[in-house]
Amino acid sequence: MDVKQVLCMSKGDGEHSYARTSTHTQKIASLAKPTIASAVDSLLEEGFFPCQHLNVVDLGCASGPSVVTFMSAVIESVREKCARSNRPTPEFQFYLNDLPGNDFNTLFKSLSNFSQDYESLSCFVMGAPGSFHGRLFPSNCLHLAHSSYSVHWLSQVPNLTSEEGSPLNKGRIYISETSPRVVKEAYLAQFRADFSTFLKSRGKEMVDNGRLVLILNGREDKDFASLDGYFIWEKLGEAIADLVSEGFVEEEKLDTLNVPYYTASSEEVRGIVDEEGSFRIEHIEIMKIDRASPGEDPHSRGRKAASHARSFTGSIISHHLGEGIMDKLYGEKLPILIGDDLAKERRMGVSIVVVLKKHVP
Amino acid sequence: MDVKQVLCMSKGDGEHSYARTSTHTQKIASLAKPTIASAVDSLLEEGFFPCQHLNVVDLGCASGPSVVTFMSAVIESVREKCARSNRPTPEFQFYLNDLPGNDFNTLFKSLSNFSQDYESLSCFVMGAPGSFHGRLFPSNCLHLAHSSYSVHWLSQVPNLTSEEGSPLNKGRIYISETSPRVVKEAYLAQFRADFSTFLKSRGKEMVDNGRLVLILNGREDKDFASLDGYFIWEKLGEAIADLVSEGFVEEEKLDTLNVPYYTASSEEVRGIVDEEGSFRIEHIEIMKIDRASPGEDPHSRGRKAASHARSFTGSIISHHLGEGIMDKLYGEKLPILIGDDLAKERRMGVSIVVVLKKHVP
Repeated sequence: MDVKQVLCMSKGDGEHSYARTSTHTQKIASLAKPTIASAVDSLLEEGFFPCQHLNVVDLGCASGPSVVTFMSAVIESVREKCARSNRPTPEFQFYLNDLPGNDFNTLFKSLSNFSQDYESLSCFVMGAPGSFHGRLFPSNCLHLAHSSYSVHWLSQVPNLTSEEGSPLNKGRIYISETSPRVVKEAYLAQFRADFSTFLKSRGKEMVDNGRLVLILNGREDKDFASLDGYFIWEKLGEAIADLVSEGFVEEEKLDTLNVPYYTASSEEVRGIVDEEGSFRIEHIEIMKIDRASPGEDPHSRGRKAASHARSFTGSIISHHLGEGIMDKLYGEKLPILIGDDLAKERRMGVSIVVVLKKHVP
Repeated sequence: MDVKQVLCMSKGDGEHSYARTSTHTQKIASLAKPTIASAVDSLLEEGFFPCQHLNVVDLGCASGPSVVTFMSAVIESVREKCARSNRPTPEFQFYLNDLPGNDFNTLFKSLSNFSQDYESLSCFVMGAPGSFHGRLFPSNCLHLAHSSYSVHWLSQVPNLTSEEGSPLNKGRIYISETSPRVVKEAYLAQFRADFSTFLKSRGKEMVDNGRLVLILNGREDKDFASLDGYFIWEKLGEAIADLVSEGFVEEEKLDTLNVPYYTASSEEVRGIVDEEGSFRIEHIEIMKIDRASPGEDPHSRGRKAASHARSFTGSIISHHLGEGIMDKLYGEKLPILIGDDLAKERRMGVSIVVVLKKHVP
């Protein structure tokens, strides 16, 4: 397995669900270009021609500009491959997927420049509203599927209550190094169920030999020993605990708050893919990205990271704790906790990049 | 050609573009059910089986409930046909098209009940933003296309200025019985160009023998002798002329206002379809619908019709005359003019329903 370290850029801990935001993911999307190019290359190698048109989906695309980066990467890769092999470029049909509550209006309006850039091509863009934890498309119709920073979101929070009804993950909002084993097991079980359903659905929708490219937040180690795999959630939990001790939030609110999110290890990803059986792994790598740029002031970074964290965690947190606490949490507490930490330690974000090939039975 | 009179319902003059509204079109969509059922029936007759999945598009669907009426009509027709011929029901992929400025967010959120109603089926709904005056889909991928009250909208207002730069359609906003021949010719030329492009685009996108079902506002007579074909525009023009004479609107504003809309005769529709050549006409009929319900107070109907007219003409008119005049126009002048007219005359809305079959070269 490759381990790449990308030191020049910062990134948040999970950007999406349903509110993935701009620059961070856009940079990551650029980093993913070679992976996409290589997936397209091998897809087109394998008897895909003569191809009428290429059906491509971006799963959990939100409404940000990384959609355009992804679509451009696919088009450029296909164009180059076709030019090299002296074939006509196929027609493209891009499906942009996210939950029905996503802002598709903004997404569609933002695509006018994209259409102009590629007006010499036959390129058609559609919206596909729905949850990728179930079927979204008819059988055998997709050639290439892609999901960037979405698959780590769970369909629901695992059950983290004891038989007696008391919270099992007291004082935390996600797995932490000291979380009881039962908490880690419940999270992994939920991820296994969700990721298996995801793979099974895509397996039905994709043509034989179709490629599924996934980028998700994950962790390097086996047992959540390193904070890298849960940094934002840990700091957010600490910030809420501070608000509890200051009397702004009830302790019971914190004890019953857990996020529907999982940072898998690459071994877990590999295990679930093998077990589910629709795909085989063609490539898997871990990408480590420094959470602060070299020379950047840690507290300035803390403010940016907290603001970014609000964009993808805010709706979950405000739903549980109420809107009234949000500015204090994300504007005061969290930036300081992140800044103080980054002043002492170098923190890395861990991404898993995986290319899967639809298994031919 | 069949001429049907549907006396029990009222309807506006053109509902869409870009703001098609509820009850009227929904009723019309119900009336169109037998036409859709018959188109589905003949489509499925012709060697369509074994069918993996059926690709269906609703062109210019807006965000109203008539989308669901249409999709349900297709599903029910296919189900019945499959049950009769002892075949499994195919998977459905519905594409909902309108301009990128359409409210797709509302549309997508409104579909949750629909999905529940048909959760036993494989039925997938997509949004397809773009103008149907050009290509929207890859080649040879659509089996059934449908457009209800959209195709009468033009891509632009025809040029209605003389060589000297003076307006050719003074005092009117659309063709009227007394409009100069050159105005009628310019409108027809624009409709011919737009409808030909529409047919050519759909011709490329549809599979051989695919069916295109269109419902559009039209006229019965050859030469705009009857007000039925342009009733709302005529009354709206009169209302604006009243505001000119009262000093609320400059005369030049009225003289240079013309709407991007055309009510074709069925002969014109037939001629353009034959000339363009991608399709042949399988069925064409004229549907006449009473503008007022029996026994309904004409002035109450006038108020409803004016309010409905505002929903689909308002954005064009306010863009030209300014927002400030809108309440006076649609709330005061237009209801009275429509009401007075309906008190004296029985007025019919004229719809053309046409089923086209993709020509096999």
